[in-house]
Amino acid sequence: MEQVKVSVITIGDELLIGQVIDTNSAWIAQELNKIGVWVHRRLAVGDERNEIWKALDDESMVSSVILITGGLGPTADDITKPLLCEYFGGKMVMDDATLKHITYLFTQVFKRPLPLLESNRRQAMVPDVATILKNEVGTAPNMLFEKDGKIFISMPGVPHEMKFAVEKYVVPLLQQRFRLPYIGHRNLLTVGIGESFLAHRIKDFESALPSNIKLAYLPNYGMVRLRLTAQGDNETTETVLDKTFKTLKELVSDVLAIDEDVPFEILLGRLLKQSNKTVSTAESCTGGYIAHLITSVAGSSDYFKGSVVSYSNSIKEDVLQVSNETLATAGAVSEETVREMVSGVLKVMKTDYAVAVSGIMGPGGGSEDKPVGTVWMAAGNAEKIETKKMHFRFERVRNIELTAAHALHWLCMFIKNNS
Amino acid sequence: MEQVKVSVITIGDELLIGQVIDTNSAWIAQELNKIGVWVHRRLAVGDERNEIWKALDDESMVSSVILITGGLGPTADDITKPLLCEYFGGKMVMDDATLKHITYLFTQVFKRPLPLLESNRRQAMVPDVATILKNEVGTAPNMLFEKDGKIFISMPGVPHEMKFAVEKYVVPLLQQRFRLPYIGHRNLLTVGIGESFLAHRIKDFESALPSNIKLAYLPNYGMVRLRLTAQGDNETTETVLDKTFKTLKELVSDVLAIDEDVPFEILLGRLLKQSNKTVSTAESCTGGYIAHLITSVAGSSDYFKGSVVSYSNSIKEDVLQVSNETLATAGAVSEETVREMVSGVLKVMKTDYAVAVSGIMGPGGGSEDKPVGTVWMAAGNAEKIETKKMHFRFERVRNIELTAAHALHWLCMFIKNNS
Repeated sequence: MEQVKVSVITIGDELLIGQVIDTNSAWIAQELNKIGVWVHRRLAVGDERNEIWKALDDESMVSSVILITGGLGPTADDITKPLLCEYFGGKMVMDDATLKHITYLFTQVFKRPLPLLESNRRQAMVPDVATILKNEVGTAPNMLFEKDGKIFISMPGVPHEMKFAVEKYVVPLLQQRFRLPYIGHRNLLTVGIGESFLAHRIKDFESALPSNIKLAYLPNYGMVRLRLTAQGDNETTETVLDKTFKTLKELVSDVLAIDEDVPFEILLGRLLKQSNKTVSTAESCTGGYIAHLITSVAGSSDYFKGSVVSYSNSIKEDVLQVSNETLATAGAVSEETVREMVSGVLKVMKTDYAVAVSGIMGPGGGSEDKPVGTVWMAAGNAEKIETKKMHFRFERVRNIELTAAHALHWLCMFIKNNS
Repeated sequence: MEQVKVSVITIGDELLIGQVIDTNSAWIAQELNKIGVWVHRRLAVGDERNEIWKALDDESMVSSVILITGGLGPTADDITKPLLCEYFGGKMVMDDATLKHITYLFTQVFKRPLPLLESNRRQAMVPDVATILKNEVGTAPNMLFEKDGKIFISMPGVPHEMKFAVEKYVVPLLQQRFRLPYIGHRNLLTVGIGESFLAHRIKDFESALPSNIKLAYLPNYGMVRLRLTAQGDNETTETVLDKTFKTLKELVSDVLAIDEDVPFEILLGRLLKQSNKTVSTAESCTGGYIAHLITSVAGSSDYFKGSVVSYSNSIKEDVLQVSNETLATAGAVSEETVREMVSGVLKVMKTDYAVAVSGIMGPGGGSEDKPVGTVWMAAGNAEKIETKKMHFRFERVRNIELTAAHALHWLCMFIKNNS
C-alpha cells in the first residue's frame, strides 16, 4: 500500500528563538497517526522569506501533503500569506465570504465598533489560487493549494484554530484522497525498573517481533513507557498486535503500572467514579500541582473535593493538625508528617481517600540527612495509610512533576488495593 | 559579519507520533540566541535510517553547525550512533573513559550490582571519528564530528543531559569558532487590548523602525507580548534598541503590564520580597494551578504560605468561611463568593495578601447566565479587596491557564497599587 508522506512546516520567529514551545506539531502528529498517517518530517523556520520558500521546496520534494501552521496573523511580522500567493503563482483578491465572517466576529463576538481596521480587512485578502477553508473559530482563513500533485494546507498557528482546521478539513481530506494503512499502538507503563534492565529482560521478546511491529522505550518521570506500533493493511495486524501485547504484559507484570497510554489523573478519576468515592490532597513541596493534575480532567468535581497546600509549617499545624512535636522531632519532610497530613486532610475535606507529599525540591533547602530531591509521600483512607520515600535528582520544576506523577501512582495503587 | 547558521535535528518516533512534545529545541534556541546565534531551521525526524541520513545531508547544505538531539538510548530502537559512525566514515570502538564513567554511574550513583549489561557497555562504544564530549550527568556520551568545514554535535534527548551539553560544550565552542553579532531583545506585555488594535495604534512606530530592529507580536493568554529584536555588530545597536523600546513603552503605557519577559509569578516574588510580605491563594476553578505557578519559583517559601483549593462548596464553607447564604443566593461563581474567599484565606493562612478565583472551566457546568468561561477573581489584603469578572472562550485546560495568568496579573497590580 502506498504510504502517504506528510510534512509539517511551522512558521514563526518566536519558535526559533525559543520563546514559544511548539505544541501544535505534536498534536497534529497524534491526530494524523490515529487515521494511519505518519508525519515524516517536522520543520520549523522563522518569518524569513527565503527560509519559508526553501521549506516549501524541500518538503514538497519528499512529501505528498504539506501542512503549514503559523504566520497568518493580522500584523506586519506575518509574511506567509503573500509569499504563498507568489509561490503558487496567484494574485491577492478580496474574499467576500471571509470578509463577511471577519465582520461578524468583530461586531457580534468581539463586540468591537465598526469600521474594521485595515489590518482586519487584509485578513480577508487571499490568493486567487487558493481554496478557502472557512476558519469558523478565528479571523485568519485556512488555505488549500495544489501543485504538481502535492497538497498544501496553510492554517493559523493559534492552537484552537489549528485544531479546528485539522479536524474539520485535514483529516477528512486525507481519508478521502488516500487509501490509508492500519496503524495500531499499544502502550504500557512500568514503574520501578530502569530502561536498560527492562530492555535486558525483554530482549528475546524484542528480537522475535514480526517486522511490522516496532517496540519503543519512552523513559519519563523516572518510569519507562513501552510502546508497540504495528502497521499493516488488514485487521489481522490488530489481532497479532493484541497477542504480542499480551505477551509483553506478562513479561513485565511485576512492574506494570498501567497497560494503556493514559495519565494517572485519568486512571484516578475512573477508579473513584467506579466506586463513587472522593479524594483530597495535602501538598507541601508540590504546591498544588497534584490538585491541578486531578482538576485538569473534566468532571473531576464529581470526586475531587479540594486540597490544602501547606507550604509553610504553620499551615501544616493550623489547618492539617500535624502535631508540633512531629514537626519539631521528625521534621516537615518525614514519614510521620505525611501520615499526619493525610489524616488531617481526610478530616478537613471529609473525603474517602487522600494523598500527601512533603519534600525538598531544590535548588536550596537540602541537608546531608535530607538532600534536595528527598520526598515522602502517603496515601490513605480512614483505616490505613501507606507511605513511601523517594529521591529525585533533577531541577526544581522537574522534581515537582516527578513527585506529582509518583504520588498519583501511589494513590491509584492504594485505591486499587483497598477498595 | 558572517552569520553562523545553526540547524537543530531532533530524532525520535515519539516526537513524530506526538507522544512527546519537543521542549528541547525551544530551550536550545533560547540559549543560543543569548550569545547571538540564530537557529535557522529545526527539523524533527523519526528513528528511520533514511530520514536521519537525509536530514544530515539537508541540514549540512544550509547550516555550518548541526546540533542533533535524541536517538542515543541504550535500547534497540535507537539507531542514531551507528548511523552517525557510518555517515562520517568511521568504525565503532570502545571508549575506555566513557566505559569507566558508565561503570561509575551504575555502581556509585544508581547503586546497581556489577557486571554491566551488554546494552550498558554498548553505550561506551563510539565512532572512532568522533571527539567525545563527556556526559557528566548521564550514560550516553556526546559526540562531535567535523566534515567539510561543518560541525555536528550529537547529544542525548533527555532534557537535563542535553542542557548540560549545550552549556558545557556547544556555547563555548560557538563563541570560540565564530565572531558572533550582538543580538538584543526587549519584551513587554500588554493586557486588555487585541492584537490588531495594538498594531493599529503603533503602526507609525513600526514602519519607522530601523532595518536592523524587528517587531513581533506574540498573543498569548489573552494578552499580547511585543518583542523588539535588534541585530548588529557594535554596542550602538543596544543604545538604539533601548531608545526604541522606551518609545514603544510610552505608546502602550495605558495597557502595559510588564516591560520585560518575565512571568507574573516571578514578578510577584519580587514585589513580595521587596516589601517582606506574604501571600496565599484560595482557588476553586484553577484547582491549585495558581499555587503551582507561584511555587515553581525557587525561594517562594519565603513569601508563599499556602493555598486552599476549595473545589467543592462544602470546603468553601467549612475551611474558607464563605457564608452559606452567599453560596445559595449569589452562587459559587460570583463577586460575593470570591470576596469572601479572599477574606477567608487571609484568616486561615495569616498572610498579607491573597488572591481568589471561582469560575466555570468547561466543558460542562455552564448556564445561560454564567456560560462556560465565566470567572470571578479577587485580590486583596486586610483593608481592601478588588474584584474582576472575565470570560474565556477556550477548552478546559487553556481556560485554567488563562485564569491563573490573569489572576496573578490582578494580584501583582493590587500589590503594586496597595503597598
